[in-house]
Amino acid sequence: MKSSLIELIEILEYKVQRYIEGFDTNVHPYDIAEILLELRDYDENIYLQELEKFPEDLKASVLIELPKQCHEEFVEHFTTNELADITNTLDTDDAAEFIRNIEEVDEDVAEEVLQNLPKEDRDNLETLISFGEYEAGSYMQTELFSAFIDEQVGDSIRRLKSLKAAKELDSVYQVYVINRKKIFLGSIPLEDLILLGPNVYYEELVKDGVNTVAVNALDDIHDVVEVASNYDMGVIAVVDSKGKLLGRITSDDIYDIIEDRATGQLYNLAGVSDEAEQEESLLNIGKHRAFWLGINLLTAIAASVVIGLFDTTLQSFVALAVLMPIVASMGGNAGTQTLTVTVRQMALGDISDDDAKKTIKKEVYLSLMNGSIFAVTIGLIAWVWFSIPLLGVVIAISMVVNLITAGFFGALIPLLLKKADIDPAVGSSVLLTTVTDIVGFFSFLGLATIILL
Amino acid sequence: MKSSLIELIEILEYKVQRYIEGFDTNVHPYDIAEILLELRDYDENIYLQELEKFPEDLKASVLIELPKQCHEEFVEHFTTNELADITNTLDTDDAAEFIRNIEEVDEDVAEEVLQNLPKEDRDNLETLISFGEYEAGSYMQTELFSAFIDEQVGDSIRRLKSLKAAKELDSVYQVYVINRKKIFLGSIPLEDLILLGPNVYYEELVKDGVNTVAVNALDDIHDVVEVASNYDMGVIAVVDSKGKLLGRITSDDIYDIIEDRATGQLYNLAGVSDEAEQEESLLNIGKHRAFWLGINLLTAIAASVVIGLFDTTLQSFVALAVLMPIVASMGGNAGTQTLTVTVRQMALGDISDDDAKKTIKKEVYLSLMNGSIFAVTIGLIAWVWFSIPLLGVVIAISMVVNLITAGFFGALIPLLLKKADIDPAVGSSVLLTTVTDIVGFFSFLGLATIILL
Repeated sequence: MKSSLIELIEILEYKVQRYIEGFDTNVHPYDIAEILLELRDYDENIYLQELEKFPEDLKASVLIELPKQCHEEFVEHFTTNELADITNTLDTDDAAEFIRNIEEVDEDVAEEVLQNLPKEDRDNLETLISFGEYEAGSYMQTELFSAFIDEQVGDSIRRLKSLKAAKELDSVYQVYVINRKKIFLGSIPLEDLILLGPNVYYEELVKDGVNTVAVNALDDIHDVVEVASNYDMGVIAVVDSKGKLLGRITSDDIYDIIEDRATGQLYNLAGVSDEAEQEESLLNIGKHRAFWLGINLLTAIAASVVIGLFDTTLQSFVALAVLMPIVASMGGNAGTQTLTVTVRQMALGDISDDDAKKTIKKEVYLSLMNGSIFAVTIGLIAWVWFSIPLLGVVIAISMVVNLITAGFFGALIPLLLKKADIDPAVGSSVLLTTVTDIVGFFSFLGLATIILL
Repeated sequence: MKSSLIELIEILEYKVQRYIEGFDTNVHPYDIAEILLELRDYDENIYLQELEKFPEDLKASVLIELPKQCHEEFVEHFTTNELADITNTLDTDDAAEFIRNIEEVDEDVAEEVLQNLPKEDRDNLETLISFGEYEAGSYMQTELFSAFIDEQVGDSIRRLKSLKAAKELDSVYQVYVINRKKIFLGSIPLEDLILLGPNVYYEELVKDGVNTVAVNALDDIHDVVEVASNYDMGVIAVVDSKGKLLGRITSDDIYDIIEDRATGQLYNLAGVSDEAEQEESLLNIGKHRAFWLGINLLTAIAASVVIGLFDTTLQSFVALAVLMPIVASMGGNAGTQTLTVTVRQMALGDISDDDAKKTIKKEVYLSLMNGSIFAVTIGLIAWVWFSIPLLGVVIAISMVVNLITAGFFGALIPLLLKKADIDPAVGSSVLLTTVTDIVGFFSFLGLATIILL
């Protein structure tokens, strides 16, 4: 049941009120963002008016839960000063994302917003923005709790107190130990600090062994996910190439990255762009889908040209036209099975570069196994259906040929794409079905021409 | 470059040595598990001999990083006593998983291992094992740091110290406040404890507002992922239906659940079973793939029967046999685009039950748009290719019809499956291509019979 506009506004204002009063009602900015989005479906002006009334910090917390197109509306609706205030309230990683989204609408506004920030924050954000979309640096937040190795625990805790009092730091979890040159030496869980007296020096703690796992800001973000997930880390330190501590990546970002990568793979395998699908304009979504449909049209025409080579054979045996889609369809399906498994296992790191031969061998075995079973099945069916024994032989042979082709190319194509540094999910489905269609039609009609005519 | 067997053993023993000495070398049980798996590829006996030499706690930590089939080997290789020791060293969530895996090999052994555990641990594990595969309870660990609401911070910290000294607790992150009936009242980040004196009562802290978000042990694990990801939580409390605190789910489990769900969707859409693909036996993998290939064979034959209805038409115009796969292929592709986007957005919670109509409408618009473009394109191509203007008209009309069908059913099928409480990723591709193949062939050949004959 959808709520009416008036109900929505009431719910929204009630939740905002409870949020402002304190955390005890379980109201999270995410919930407020969800209601705002419903409101936006009704009326964009009312939605912006309501948002306008929020206190500055709530505006910022809600903003970061809203989809990108809303960020773009913010740019048109708020003044540069207001945008700068919002940016300033956000955690650095979220602030960088917001500035990047503003940049996409209007680079000048983004620049003005940056100029409106205190010098230190501006420099900080400019560094974050300079990282590439897939680099660890663009996901890190620079807010963290660090301590010097020659410091006493008590002194660092006093600093933590003032950071917390200034509300500059959330979800601390651990202390990052650095030397005076800011080189990262290891992380210590907060619980260990609680158990120690204030007079212990970090030096002694580090001697007992600390977790020194960190990622480089230039690392591919998917490698960071691997590290976090293999080593069961909720938060991960980010350093530069000299080992200087720059920031940290938290579990909520890791969740998003894992989901986004999976969505990207699913969409790319289906010939859909994950970025375009997030847009609101049907025209843009349609254009991106049309691209892959267009490629598919070309490959389908290529397959038709192959069929056209055998038009005299087809004229003599209409049964061939009836049966020919079966071979192509089975090849396409078997190939998609292989392709999907290979692409996914490569992404999860279960297939390394050494394993190329092993993977192809496995898939060819599997397709030989299933190819034989379905060859016999369809051979018998075709024989009985059309009472032509040799027709059964033709379709059986071409079924085996096409299923082996499917297994071989289903594994080879993503492996080759990756070797060429191309995302193995992009375009591989179309390439594969081109192969299975052409091999399917050619082997079936070709064999028929030789054996039946 | 693969390492030789001797090199592998040397690397393994070196890493194990470093691990035992302390954490400072960044050796994680995951790394040791990876080397062991390589070793296992060479020789299963040497791998088990090496594993045998590990200290008990390393055995346990490595075990949980190894795939399921290794757990099954453990059952055959170790005595019940050893298995019980390993189980006892694991965190409760990992221990429950291990017992479940033992159960799959031999229920009696699992029962014996449980009987070998101290009574309290046994009861605890039996509760965890009783949860279903997709229930939050089967992912939680019962190790956590809780404090009573009428307690002073200092007293709870003394308890934490003894828990840590007994190595019973890792990654504490927060304190869970409960009343004397163990009812969960809220969680407080550890950092807040550090900043308070030991004499503060939890009562006062809770008054200032605490995070009361918790999930029910019977909740679907994917709903838990939604909560963690929407509310940016690294750890999440689990309660029973009366609100009693039972355990917590940590970010490393959330990572795995997100990855596994995505893999499941990708595989299911491609007609592959994610569980079977993890097995080592090619026969088992092949059998599961053959199931969906078999279903596909049936639907391909159904499509052929449709083609067979028009054999006289095909005999008069071989051009129809040449062109007919194009219509079916485009329908299949457009439908897969729609299907994939719908399935994924449903899983991510972006399409709610209210949105069914909206989703279908959007997809039909999109397919109408692209259908028109490709109808004109292929119409012109067919006309020029075969010099029959009416053939262009036939293929153009059937292209629009099939692409609209693809958009409509691509959205409808997963929505209906979900309504019937069936995973919308399972079987939907086959259902869809059956529709697009049959509608494609029928509309094209049917129209041709009416217009061209």
